[in-house]
Amino acid sequence: MLTFKKPDVEQFFRTLAIQNFTVSPSEDQLILSTNLSGKYNLWGMDLPNNFPYPLTFIDQSCHELTFDKQGRFFIAGFDHDGDENTQLYALKPSGGELKPLRVAEGERHMSPILSKDGSRLYYTSTKENKMYLNTYCYQLDTDEETIVNVGEKAGTYLLDVGPNEDKFVYFRHFANTYTLAHVVVDGEEFLLTPETDKQHTTSSVLFTSDTEIYLITDYDDDFSYLAKFDITTKSFSKVLSFEQEDFQSIKYNKVRQSLYITSSKGVEDFLYEFSIGDNQVNKIEIPVSVIQKLIVTETGNLYLLGRSAVEPNNIYQCENGSTEWKACTNLGVPGVSKDELCEPEVVTYPSFDGLDIEALFFKAKPEVSNGHVILWPHGGPQAAERKSFRALFQFLVHRGYSIFTPNFRGSSGYGLSFMKMVEGDWGYGPRLDNIEGVEWLISNGYADRDKVLLMGGSYGGYMALLLHGRHADYFKAVVDIFGPSDLFSFIDSVPEHWKPAMNQWVGDPVKDKEKLIEYSPITYLEQMTKPMLVIQGANDPRVVKAESDKIVKALEDRGVNVEYLVLEDEGHGFSKKENEIKVNRTILEFFNRFI
Amino acid sequence: MLTFKKPDVEQFFRTLAIQNFTVSPSEDQLILSTNLSGKYNLWGMDLPNNFPYPLTFIDQSCHELTFDKQGRFFIAGFDHDGDENTQLYALKPSGGELKPLRVAEGERHMSPILSKDGSRLYYTSTKENKMYLNTYCYQLDTDEETIVNVGEKAGTYLLDVGPNEDKFVYFRHFANTYTLAHVVVDGEEFLLTPETDKQHTTSSVLFTSDTEIYLITDYDDDFSYLAKFDITTKSFSKVLSFEQEDFQSIKYNKVRQSLYITSSKGVEDFLYEFSIGDNQVNKIEIPVSVIQKLIVTETGNLYLLGRSAVEPNNIYQCENGSTEWKACTNLGVPGVSKDELCEPEVVTYPSFDGLDIEALFFKAKPEVSNGHVILWPHGGPQAAERKSFRALFQFLVHRGYSIFTPNFRGSSGYGLSFMKMVEGDWGYGPRLDNIEGVEWLISNGYADRDKVLLMGGSYGGYMALLLHGRHADYFKAVVDIFGPSDLFSFIDSVPEHWKPAMNQWVGDPVKDKEKLIEYSPITYLEQMTKPMLVIQGANDPRVVKAESDKIVKALEDRGVNVEYLVLEDEGHGFSKKENEIKVNRTILEFFNRFI
Repeated sequence: MLTFKKPDVEQFFRTLAIQNFTVSPSEDQLILSTNLSGKYNLWGMDLPNNFPYPLTFIDQSCHELTFDKQGRFFIAGFDHDGDENTQLYALKPSGGELKPLRVAEGERHMSPILSKDGSRLYYTSTKENKMYLNTYCYQLDTDEETIVNVGEKAGTYLLDVGPNEDKFVYFRHFANTYTLAHVVVDGEEFLLTPETDKQHTTSSVLFTSDTEIYLITDYDDDFSYLAKFDITTKSFSKVLSFEQEDFQSIKYNKVRQSLYITSSKGVEDFLYEFSIGDNQVNKIEIPVSVIQKLIVTETGNLYLLGRSAVEPNNIYQCENGSTEWKACTNLGVPGVSKDELCEPEVVTYPSFDGLDIEALFFKAKPEVSNGHVILWPHGGPQAAERKSFRALFQFLVHRGYSIFTPNFRGSSGYGLSFMKMVEGDWGYGPRLDNIEGVEWLISNGYADRDKVLLMGGSYGGYMALLLHGRHADYFKAVVDIFGPSDLFSFIDSVPEHWKPAMNQWVGDPVKDKEKLIEYSPITYLEQMTKPMLVIQGANDPRVVKAESDKIVKALEDRGVNVEYLVLEDEGHGFSKKENEIKVNRTILEFFNRFI
Repeated sequence: MLTFKKPDVEQFFRTLAIQNFTVSPSEDQLILSTNLSGKYNLWGMDLPNNFPYPLTFIDQSCHELTFDKQGRFFIAGFDHDGDENTQLYALKPSGGELKPLRVAEGERHMSPILSKDGSRLYYTSTKENKMYLNTYCYQLDTDEETIVNVGEKAGTYLLDVGPNEDKFVYFRHFANTYTLAHVVVDGEEFLLTPETDKQHTTSSVLFTSDTEIYLITDYDDDFSYLAKFDITTKSFSKVLSFEQEDFQSIKYNKVRQSLYITSSKGVEDFLYEFSIGDNQVNKIEIPVSVIQKLIVTETGNLYLLGRSAVEPNNIYQCENGSTEWKACTNLGVPGVSKDELCEPEVVTYPSFDGLDIEALFFKAKPEVSNGHVILWPHGGPQAAERKSFRALFQFLVHRGYSIFTPNFRGSSGYGLSFMKMVEGDWGYGPRLDNIEGVEWLISNGYADRDKVLLMGGSYGGYMALLLHGRHADYFKAVVDIFGPSDLFSFIDSVPEHWKPAMNQWVGDPVKDKEKLIEYSPITYLEQMTKPMLVIQGANDPRVVKAESDKIVKALEDRGVNVEYLVLEDEGHGFSKKENEIKVNRTILEFFNRFI
């Protein structure tokens, strides 16, 4: 009979994605941001029919998506070619005109919340307070706008609005590991967590009534848990926690009087339903390893956007009372089944100081393996590499490379103190965790000393540059995607509203000058001797092109084998299929030349 | 509350389409050719989930689509940028490699039929017999090929293969109104319709057993009907006919022992189920006006690709025994509901010689109407304008133009003698039918004499050119899309396998020289005085670019206001969304300048 070739690299490149979604109040329509057409646009589907139809042709990523509670329109926030300056538009559910609602060039609008009657839009913006942000109330019918909150002390973001629109919860982002939430009642501000000198975070917050607020915090604990704040008594109480699990966010279901909690434990996520009345908690089995977005509708139905290592983001629906998840979408690697993809092994190794580091090892099948292992320090750095589909990983593994992704100190999902370990210490502990990881691989038979490659993006790109500068002997070739090379110019170039947090996160350019020099890859240019590929988005607002220009020029001047790929219409990530394909193809060809 | 602008022209341009589809034998997968990504590719859906996933990235139209009866692979035929040279590939149902099966540059492969065990592929090709075509049997496992039939007398196409693969039905295409089918048994040829001098057609043909063949023919009748041919007795018998209805095609369902008949009556289609045992016939209500493709599966489920005036092609499913059609796809004009689109009025008028002509009138709503009517002579000419969605029509109507589409003599769906009226008479009767139509519009209050525009494609483009040359006073401006201007070069430039039919259809360049001069628009260049827009596909195999070049140059030389739009990567039609948008926008802007 007919035989077909093994899956081609091209097929992995062509894996489509879903970025974001929302559900209409009557649950007859699902709106999703997907790149079915090669670029991101919004598509609708009229449930239970899940054939999608196009709603926009803007070819841009959608960061915000909120339905009018009466279903008459929805709000969508798009940036332009990855510049992260999200602008807010209104659309009819059937598509058509993108009606500009809040558009200001060069500014970013965030967290839109519509009033119940759909006539007022609350949102936070950079437009008049670039460093600390303001929150506004925009009247959709009269086009009038008032300032609801002037940010101060740190970037101040609206989190939720009370049922009577007279109470507002904000959080101040001092650092990724230091965010405080407060409720404003009659102009007075009350912190949701007790006063303390110890840094902690509050993330997901919601009103369950006019006087009760639930929140996720790690106040006085190493892991985030569910807590409650009573507005009447101003009292805080811990409600629910699980050992070694970092609660991520909560959703409220009024009908069932329950809270849905998404929780992270290292490389994967879990979902729980917590009944407010009787404090019962049930684990809900989910069809994914990583939850990107959960929507709980008024009827108690659940809609989940999530993924696993062997499946990209898909949307699933679980009806109230059921335990069965139905796939609303059906994306995968074209022509490649899940069985043909690589499920990573979870390993743990002790680092230089005895700290346990969890990591994923994606092992190439013996019949295709070229014996080489790519070290992938993840981005963030206060994030983690998880059981989450990456076409880049899967196609490299399919082509014979194994991949090792250590969740070095500073990664999220391992508690507050672990996450804080990278702060002000970008270039020491995490770097050695990576090197210890490679040593562990070699001693445990996972890698050969002379067959190790290095690749990372964003902070991972920074780490790739730094590892290259300080441990070049370990690596045969290095790929840097969007990585800062000079921490001084990096600190200088981030958006204004990031700046208040930079001292704690990276360092103070004056006080920590010595350390920042020591931690900047550019300091070690002389020792960068291995072939290098540098990839940069021209519109990247986080790692500006000048960063990459600088290191490429310096290496070229020294005669190092360096390739430079600049993507003209991208920011800090890839939003366009053709660019993604170009980048991934370039990476494969680059590595193939040096193995 | 928020108000949104009326639908924009852009939205009509963005209407997506479905070209073709097939269903896997186990009915767990549907494969469709659609331009979801902006260009045509194959997409799959895993029924009952109807979220599509991409199977190919070839960006080309798919003309043939046949599943292996055991579901292990399927055959797809693609041409290149509209050149109509269909090449046959095999694919796994999950996508991936496009395995070339029968590929020969510059040749066309047609009507692939797979043996039950999937190891032999029967198909007709131009490759060794450009004029009359050969039929081949290709062995998929051994890569061997034998010639099953050498075409002679006319283009000879395989129609069906007997259950034991020892009997074959072919049809010879002498003209659109003269096609004869025969069965070959042991090398002997038997005509399926009785011998007669009177031209007639046989179209859809199938084996219901090794000895019984059902066919659609108009032998000895003006309208096509269902007939039967008994191979044992070599006897032909009429089985079922409906007055004024032209049967189009038949599908067989073994389980129900019935034939599904699609039938045309002027501007719309009907569907019937005919029970072979008891000769009962039932009309099946369908959710469309025009049927493009019907698949009857072994279980008796129906899958239908069809459209109406206000809805583009969608796929519907009707389970065996049910009368309810479920939409598998959900395409429409983005942001525009069916109610906002124009359902045409069906009108009938007497032509110059008393012949009744049926036509559609798409009337612009009073609040947007600009008072102008566009005359649209359809292509073919042995085709018809029907209740069939055209984004071009709907957006022009939405922008205030009314459209009039007469099914002039020669159109299909009105019987054989009506259809034959255009043969050898391209430029007389049909032309006057169009002019009479305009006069009728004016006398009946549908149009103002000084507000008539003209547009047509293919034969309609030819007719637009001819009407412009001979009746310029009627029209304010003219759009010609892919229209032949000189019948001599048209006859000369069509593919080899069309040539045998050209004498009857258009005329003999020697014997009919005078007539062809009279009927060629280029003869009337001097009288073409109105502004004109000419649109041409550079790869068009039917109306070659030289045709359009010639007329444009001649008009330019004479100082006529002429615009010329050449589409580099298109043939006789638009396969690429961006080209379609460009063409439609150009047409609107052109007309807007002259009203």
